[in-house]
Amino acid sequence: MIQVAILGYGTIGSGVYEVLNINKQVIEKRIGDEIRVKYVLDLREFPGSPIEDILVHDVNTILEDPEVSVVVEVMGGVEPAHTFVKNALLAGKSVATSNKALVAKYGAELSEIAKQKNQSFLFEASVGGGIPIIRSINTALTGDVVEEISGILNGTTNYMMTEMTNHGSEFEVVLKDAQKKGYAEADPTADIEGHDACRKIAILTSLLTGQQVDFEDIYTEGITKITAGDIKFAKAMGRKIKLLATSKKQGDSYCAMVSPVLLGSSHPLYHVDGVFNAVFVVGNMLGDAMFYGSGAGSLPTASAVVADVVDICKNLGKNIPYEWSAEKLSLADISSSQKSFFVRVEGSREEKSEEIAAAFGNVEYVTCDEAAGECGFITELISEKEFEENAAKLSGIKNRIRMDQ
Amino acid sequence: MIQVAILGYGTIGSGVYEVLNINKQVIEKRIGDEIRVKYVLDLREFPGSPIEDILVHDVNTILEDPEVSVVVEVMGGVEPAHTFVKNALLAGKSVATSNKALVAKYGAELSEIAKQKNQSFLFEASVGGGIPIIRSINTALTGDVVEEISGILNGTTNYMMTEMTNHGSEFEVVLKDAQKKGYAEADPTADIEGHDACRKIAILTSLLTGQQVDFEDIYTEGITKITAGDIKFAKAMGRKIKLLATSKKQGDSYCAMVSPVLLGSSHPLYHVDGVFNAVFVVGNMLGDAMFYGSGAGSLPTASAVVADVVDICKNLGKNIPYEWSAEKLSLADISSSQKSFFVRVEGSREEKSEEIAAAFGNVEYVTCDEAAGECGFITELISEKEFEENAAKLSGIKNRIRMDQ
Repeated sequence: MIQVAILGYGTIGSGVYEVLNINKQVIEKRIGDEIRVKYVLDLREFPGSPIEDILVHDVNTILEDPEVSVVVEVMGGVEPAHTFVKNALLAGKSVATSNKALVAKYGAELSEIAKQKNQSFLFEASVGGGIPIIRSINTALTGDVVEEISGILNGTTNYMMTEMTNHGSEFEVVLKDAQKKGYAEADPTADIEGHDACRKIAILTSLLTGQQVDFEDIYTEGITKITAGDIKFAKAMGRKIKLLATSKKQGDSYCAMVSPVLLGSSHPLYHVDGVFNAVFVVGNMLGDAMFYGSGAGSLPTASAVVADVVDICKNLGKNIPYEWSAEKLSLADISSSQKSFFVRVEGSREEKSEEIAAAFGNVEYVTCDEAAGECGFITELISEKEFEENAAKLSGIKNRIRMDQ
Repeated sequence: MIQVAILGYGTIGSGVYEVLNINKQVIEKRIGDEIRVKYVLDLREFPGSPIEDILVHDVNTILEDPEVSVVVEVMGGVEPAHTFVKNALLAGKSVATSNKALVAKYGAELSEIAKQKNQSFLFEASVGGGIPIIRSINTALTGDVVEEISGILNGTTNYMMTEMTNHGSEFEVVLKDAQKKGYAEADPTADIEGHDACRKIAILTSLLTGQQVDFEDIYTEGITKITAGDIKFAKAMGRKIKLLATSKKQGDSYCAMVSPVLLGSSHPLYHVDGVFNAVFVVGNMLGDAMFYGSGAGSLPTASAVVADVVDICKNLGKNIPYEWSAEKLSLADISSSQKSFFVRVEGSREEKSEEIAAAFGNVEYVTCDEAAGECGFITELISEKEFEENAAKLSGIKNRIRMDQ
C-alpha cells in the first residue's frame, strides 16, 4: 500500500482528497497498488469532516513517518512550503505540488534534491491547472525546438477580459463582479498585474531551456490599463484583447513577457474565453499546437496533482527526469523584439495624421464609429525600442496594445 | 551511442530522418547520449539521397544487429509491418510506430511482448499526428475517469468539410480538389468512409479502458452522404458539420462511433478547421479539455515519432508502461445512446408538419431560406433506436445528422 500525506486542506487540498476517493478504484488499477491518504496537515481544525481523524498540525509527524512515500504540497506561498517540501525530499519522499510561487523560485533546487535522493518532484498543476502542459514539454515536445509558447495562464483575468468584451463594461465594474463571484481575490493584484502569469511563463521557459529563468527578469504588464474604449477598437478590428504570457525563441535564448495582446480570430487562443486557460506552442517540426482546459478550480487542479501522484506511484524509488539546472538563463532583451502596436490617440484622424506620420511613418488606421474625438492606428512591425522612441514624438497617446497574428 | 533503424523511407520515414538530423543537438542533450540512424529499410533505391549509404533491403540486417536498440516502423499497413515489429521486440529492441492499422489490430499483443522483453512499444503518432493525446491518456489523465473523448482525427475529411462550409461546394467537387492538393489519396475510401478515424478511436478507447477494442465493432459512417444542402441548413443553425470519432462512457463500458456531427459554436471542436486535428476530452474531475495540432504531414507526425524515440532512449532496457490487455471490451450498444437528430425532409413545413409530429412528436423547425421545397427539423433527445423507429414512419427523408452541444 502506498501512503500519501497532503499538506494543506484548502481548495486544492480538499480537491485532491476528493479525487483520490472518488476515483480510488481506477487509480489503484493504474498504479497496481492500494493508495491511502494517511495524513492531512493544516493549522485549522475540521470537526465533522472526513479528514478529522487523519488531521495533523505538525509536519514532523509526516516527515518522520517512513510509511509516507508521497507528499502532496498544496498550501501555496513560498514559506513554509519550501522548507516542508525540501525536508520531505531529503527524508526520501517524493513530492507533487500545485504551488507556482514555490516552483518558480525553487524549482531548480528541489528537482536537483529529488534527483540526488532518487525521488521525484512534480508540479503539473502549477501551470494551467488541469492542462498537461508541463508533462507535454518534458515528454512530448522532446523532438522539437520550441519556437514559441504563449498562454492564457490566468483564469481571473481571462474571465474579466471576456466580460469586458461581451458586455462593454469598464475594468472596475468587471473586477467587482469577478470578486463577487469568487473568481478574483479580495486583493486581486497578483492576477490583474500579471504576476501570477509571469511566474507560470517563468516555469515553462525554465523547462524549455533546462535552465533557471528568474521571474523577476520578465517584463510584466497587467490588464489594469485596459478600458471599454480599447475593447470598442478591438471589436472594430475583429480582435480580442487577451492577457498573454509568451516566450519566443531569440537566438540561443528566449524573449519572455506578459502583457495584453490583440489577437485575431485565426489565432487558436482567440476562442479561449471565460475562466478557461490554454497554451499555444509552436515547434520547429511540430508546427502549431494548442492545449486547452480548466486553468483553476478545485477538482481540475486536483486532477493534475493526482496525475503526478499516479506517476510517482508508478515510479517509486526512481527519479522522473527532466532538465532544470540552477544555471541562470539570460533572457533575450525585449527591446529588440518585433511586433505591431495598436495605438489610440486623442484627436481626430484629420487633426493627428500629420503628427502620426511624422512619428511612425506608414500606419494603418482603424475605423471605429463608437469612438468620438480620438483615432486609432496600427504600426508596421517595429521593435519595442523603436516604438518607445516614436511614441515619444506623438502627443495624446491614450493607450497602446501589442498585436499578434 | 544509441543506434536507430527506420523501417520505411516514405513521407513519415524521411521526416523522422530529418527531425533527428535538424534537432540532433537538442535531442542528444535531452537523451544524454549520442543518437545515430544506422539503417533505413526500404525496397526502393534512393540514389544520391543522404540515406544512400545506410539503406538496406533486408530487415534481418537490422534485426540481427545487436547495436540497433530502437526500431522506428513507419511503413504503414498491417503486413509485413506486424512481422517486422514483432521480431524486433523479440530481438530485444524497442519500437516506435506511426502505423494506426498495425496498432489498432495488434496493439495489445505487441505491448505485451514489449513488457515481457523489458522493451517499449510506443505509438504516439498513430492518432492525431503531432498531438500528444496518447501520452496524455497514459500519463496525464490518470487521476480521472474519462467520460468522453471525441476527436476530429482525420485531416482529409476535416479539410473537405471546411471547404464545403466555406465555399458551399458539393462533396465530389471538394474531393477532387483535395486529391489535386495531395490531401486526399487516389483511393480516398479509408478517409471519407471513416475507416481511418474508426481505427484511431479504437486505439484511444483501448487505452482508456486497458482492454482490446476491435475497430470492426465500432459503428462507422463517413461523410459521403453530406451535401451542399446539409451545409446550408448547418449555417442556418450557426453550426458546422464535422466528422467526429467519439467514445462516451456508458456504465462500465464505452459507446463508440464515427459519424458526421452538427456542432455548435460553443463546442471547442467547432473552430478546428482545415487539415488540423483535435481531441476533446471530458474527465470526471478535470472537466473539459482539448488538444489541437497538425494531425498529419511529414514533420508534425515525425515529431511525435521522435518524441517516442526520445522517451525510449531515456528508458533503455525498461518497459514504458501502459495498460492494454488482449481481453476484449464489449462496447456499449449504440442503439440506446441518446442524442438529438437534425432531419431534412422533402416538402414544405406546411405539407409535412402533421406527418412529422405523428412520427417524432415535438420538434424544433429550422428556417433556411436557401432551401426550397424541403424542410428541416431537430428532434428532442432520443435514442438511436427510437430515431430509426420514428424515421420509418416519415416519408421523404433526405438526410439525418446527429447533433452535439
